[in-house]
Amino acid sequence: MEKTAFSRHLDLSSVRISDSFWNEKLELVRREVIPYQYDALNDAVAGADKSYSVENFIKAGKIAEKIKNGESVPVFPTDKWCYDENNSPPEAFHGWVFQDSDVYKWIEAVGFSLINHPDEELEKRADELIEIVCAAQLPDGYLDTLFIINDRDAVFTNLKDRHELYCFGHLAEAAVSYYRGTGKRRLLDSALKFADLICDAFGPDGIKGYPGHEIAEMALVKLFEETEDKKYLEAARFFIDERGKKPYYYDIVEGKKTVYDNYHYNQAHTQPKYQYEAVGHAVRGVYLYSGMADIAKYCSDDELYFACKKLCDSIINRKMYITGGIGATVDGEAFSFDYDLPNDLAYSETCASIGFIFFLRRMLETAPDALLGDAVERALYNTVLSGMALDGKSFFYVNPLEVLPEASSKDSRKRHIRPVRQKWFGCACCPPNLARLISSVGEYAFTENENIFFIHQYIGSAVKSENAVIEIISDYLDSGNVTIRLKPKKSFTLALRIPLWSKKYSFSEGFTEKDGYAYFCINEATEIKASFCPEIRMIKCSNKVRYDLDKIAVTRGPFVYCLEQADNGRDLQMLKISKTPDFSYEGLFITANGFREKESEQLYSDWKEAEMSPVRLKFIPYYRWANRGEGEMQVYVRI
Amino acid sequence: MEKTAFSRHLDLSSVRISDSFWNEKLELVRREVIPYQYDALNDAVAGADKSYSVENFIKAGKIAEKIKNGESVPVFPTDKWCYDENNSPPEAFHGWVFQDSDVYKWIEAVGFSLINHPDEELEKRADELIEIVCAAQLPDGYLDTLFIINDRDAVFTNLKDRHELYCFGHLAEAAVSYYRGTGKRRLLDSALKFADLICDAFGPDGIKGYPGHEIAEMALVKLFEETEDKKYLEAARFFIDERGKKPYYYDIVEGKKTVYDNYHYNQAHTQPKYQYEAVGHAVRGVYLYSGMADIAKYCSDDELYFACKKLCDSIINRKMYITGGIGATVDGEAFSFDYDLPNDLAYSETCASIGFIFFLRRMLETAPDALLGDAVERALYNTVLSGMALDGKSFFYVNPLEVLPEASSKDSRKRHIRPVRQKWFGCACCPPNLARLISSVGEYAFTENENIFFIHQYIGSAVKSENAVIEIISDYLDSGNVTIRLKPKKSFTLALRIPLWSKKYSFSEGFTEKDGYAYFCINEATEIKASFCPEIRMIKCSNKVRYDLDKIAVTRGPFVYCLEQADNGRDLQMLKISKTPDFSYEGLFITANGFREKESEQLYSDWKEAEMSPVRLKFIPYYRWANRGEGEMQVYVRI
Repeated sequence: MEKTAFSRHLDLSSVRISDSFWNEKLELVRREVIPYQYDALNDAVAGADKSYSVENFIKAGKIAEKIKNGESVPVFPTDKWCYDENNSPPEAFHGWVFQDSDVYKWIEAVGFSLINHPDEELEKRADELIEIVCAAQLPDGYLDTLFIINDRDAVFTNLKDRHELYCFGHLAEAAVSYYRGTGKRRLLDSALKFADLICDAFGPDGIKGYPGHEIAEMALVKLFEETEDKKYLEAARFFIDERGKKPYYYDIVEGKKTVYDNYHYNQAHTQPKYQYEAVGHAVRGVYLYSGMADIAKYCSDDELYFACKKLCDSIINRKMYITGGIGATVDGEAFSFDYDLPNDLAYSETCASIGFIFFLRRMLETAPDALLGDAVERALYNTVLSGMALDGKSFFYVNPLEVLPEASSKDSRKRHIRPVRQKWFGCACCPPNLARLISSVGEYAFTENENIFFIHQYIGSAVKSENAVIEIISDYLDSGNVTIRLKPKKSFTLALRIPLWSKKYSFSEGFTEKDGYAYFCINEATEIKASFCPEIRMIKCSNKVRYDLDKIAVTRGPFVYCLEQADNGRDLQMLKISKTPDFSYEGLFITANGFREKESEQLYSDWKEAEMSPVRLKFIPYYRWANRGEGEMQVYVRI
Repeated sequence: MEKTAFSRHLDLSSVRISDSFWNEKLELVRREVIPYQYDALNDAVAGADKSYSVENFIKAGKIAEKIKNGESVPVFPTDKWCYDENNSPPEAFHGWVFQDSDVYKWIEAVGFSLINHPDEELEKRADELIEIVCAAQLPDGYLDTLFIINDRDAVFTNLKDRHELYCFGHLAEAAVSYYRGTGKRRLLDSALKFADLICDAFGPDGIKGYPGHEIAEMALVKLFEETEDKKYLEAARFFIDERGKKPYYYDIVEGKKTVYDNYHYNQAHTQPKYQYEAVGHAVRGVYLYSGMADIAKYCSDDELYFACKKLCDSIINRKMYITGGIGATVDGEAFSFDYDLPNDLAYSETCASIGFIFFLRRMLETAPDALLGDAVERALYNTVLSGMALDGKSFFYVNPLEVLPEASSKDSRKRHIRPVRQKWFGCACCPPNLARLISSVGEYAFTENENIFFIHQYIGSAVKSENAVIEIISDYLDSGNVTIRLKPKKSFTLALRIPLWSKKYSFSEGFTEKDGYAYFCINEATEIKASFCPEIRMIKCSNKVRYDLDKIAVTRGPFVYCLEQADNGRDLQMLKISKTPDFSYEGLFITANGFREKESEQLYSDWKEAEMSPVRLKFIPYYRWANRGEGEMQVYVRI
């Protein structure tokens, strides 16, 4: 690791986004998603699955009150993943074990949103909800409604499955965001108090366990960044160091030896420093890798950084869909083996691509490399955005690359592939995760250190940085042109990512190039014009991937395109694109010459060259699919 | 239905097979499979899953003895699908609920085999086993070891899941086979006694239920054919008529209303006469359809026959793999929706193709049509034979059309796809089913009525029929030439199936053609030479099937060919066949010109024409795959 290349993302308060594309998304989150999700958390959305999230905090608050008063409280089992009206009494905890995290993710998104757009009414609501949350905290700092309501004696007894440390992680992230957005410490103090309890309980002389669902690692680092108290960094490091040690902690607790998968699902099969292949539950994976990257950087741990580099390579070069989606199998919502990237069975969870972006930013903060910035862009402009409808009112959990609605309804192997976005999920991780990522997109565009300002994503913004006041006027997504106006506070270096898709590019000033970044010496107020070339490209997937042979995907700039039934009729598999497609870019869509094969009459017949009729194919950006009712969709098209 | 076209298969004792291809298989079953399975049934195979089959009969015999003596017997639950040492006490029933059927299938195979090849030692073993079986029968005729051992009060209370009527069906089929093979009535009398009990218990004034797993329908028809007692036909008809009536019998028994799949899995979603699409568990489906075809013919039921024709059409034209495999999904081991025929996820159970042949023969016996005979051939020479290793010592349950061993071990969606045949299954339906089908293959080759002798499959044989003494000298599988020597007992018509794959064909005598059969008037001793033309063909699958676009399969005569890693190296997906392949037929294999694509370096890159090196591809018959260790296999190859 070269420490001179280390950088940190900017505080959102230093970034004002002026980009029309992104402002529309930010406004959608502020106006539609955040209010809708508030109602959902409060079980006030007709027809949606009950969340129970706020209800649980209110129940826990009452229990906490009784405990403070020395009153006795009832005990209920904590042995399930999900508690509902059929398996739990009304006074017990309800919902998934990780239900608290939905409240935290909402508060985190509000914290970010308030920086971008102050809103008294929203802040008041959030303050009220934070009071409800904090009222549930026990005097010792413990805060997880499942165990407060159901059984305090079971606290930290099932780290593998019960998500207490996961919920803590989201609490900490929400607390930091809300503190930065409002200056209010109420939730941050609660989170620190819980963190202190965790630091006391875990460690060489305490519990030698680690989270079943990772996130606490990177969340503790955020608390360290906020407080500069190294005990939080040490706690994160402890979780990473203990993970995967043999004999397995989870086996010790359960008193039995694992014979099946050795915790690959939880990335606990071996110690993180020896993990070179991305395996198991994809969201858990990238959350862990994010924490690993944090620790590698803050603790100068070369061994851990080497593992992070290997994991990046494993994903980007062998396990990532062209859309930046990760997690190729529904079984365990997991990474599949190398080059196994089926289109119609993909899991490619919205949350996994969000977590992948968390990981990639941390890797960029350690060593900038256009490969990493390119992957952020791929995930952001394709799988992340496709997670939300254009009206912000419905969401995809799973982001397949090929959809046949008949298969989704009739083939149980494809039941997870939804052809239409859903309003709200009982297990609602993706919508609030989307809200917090989009609201904080500025954190992913730029990083800096005392000498260098990095632009990773060309999002039109006004930035007040340590090095300079910077204005970015971006037409990146359309023409590929970006203007950067700089008023330096001192001499510094500007580093611009050169998108991998842009085979030709030019800058108005001289530069040096390293790892796909162009470096400029800035000594005075100046303007740099960058011209990238978002050509329409036909991309083929490696022939090690068995699903995309003799097919191509159409891309332009960061966007992957797809065919929809609404534009091209049904039986999309009968379409072929011409090798000389005469592409035309029409803003929101691309057209190309192609053919429609004549429908076969028999199931089996002698091969002969297919009869084809010329058609003009119409492609739309992948993130815009499924906004016009149910229909077929395909990213890859035969050539 | 035209009754003049009705025909019946020949008794095996009238058919002596001289065909070298089939004699080898018959000998394999006799020398390897039958003895091996006897050991397996008796839990005498080291390393194989325990069968418990014979053990259960011995236990049940002791219980039956106690009952006859008026002694009290213990009661155990009958609420599971499978009983093992972990969930059942040693004195209770063990194995799957249908474990008895493995014993019956073995006896059935022995019955057939003894006709082909008398064998005193084998007959003695079978007689002893039959004594053990009959000793378990209760005085009232009831005979199912699960309920005899565990709980007689639960008899016929869970028809949907507990397989009593299924085991009865296999008992009846075994009894008929063994009686015909040996003339011994011991098992037949037991079966008839149990059948009488069933005829009394079920009916308009009795239980209005029907089997959850079908077979009793066609088995009862066999008892009718053997005894000419119409009550067995009526019982079969009753099961078919009651099936799928609303309110559902299964709902009435369980006291609740089905909300999920309405028993599609059991083909009980609607009455069979209204079933036009093959759905649900594929083996159950074709067993039901076989019974329906029997009843349609014997009861001249046009409505039921119409449904059978529709079901044939549904399978042959929309749900059948090129290998004659059926059942495209592991979930429910079931038919998928129309044109959903994935290669690497196929279920295509050996038993399903065997049951499909049962159904097709019954349809041929009602109205000969080359489409049906062609489907028998497809299933027989590909999926059925691929179910057994060339040495007869290991078996496939599932017969995929594409295998990547890495996927089978690492992708849980493909756990059912085994790259290597297994020795014996706990749920061992396929090996004994194979044994009984192969041992009785003569029943599928020929049918006749008082005026017409049909040759459906050109298997070299000497046949003593009602119409003539017939000798068939067949080089059908190799050169396509068949000589038929006829010594008629009277004037009659010979009907020869013209294989659909034979675009050119000639006969040495004049004929008329109808529905793909050539009809010859035979008045005197004569010899007819038939010449078919087994060209090597490149077959494409309909473009409604999304998995085989821009690919072809190589066939020759009835055989589908495939590529194996052992001959063509790994990464078979990188191979392409030339449009002008210059095929060469080398007896056991075919070679063709093709190309190997250069391996891609990047996961995603600009499309350009692939770099290819010429290679000579080597194809082997599909039924011979996986006899040389673990490796990749592909039926469809890119063109």
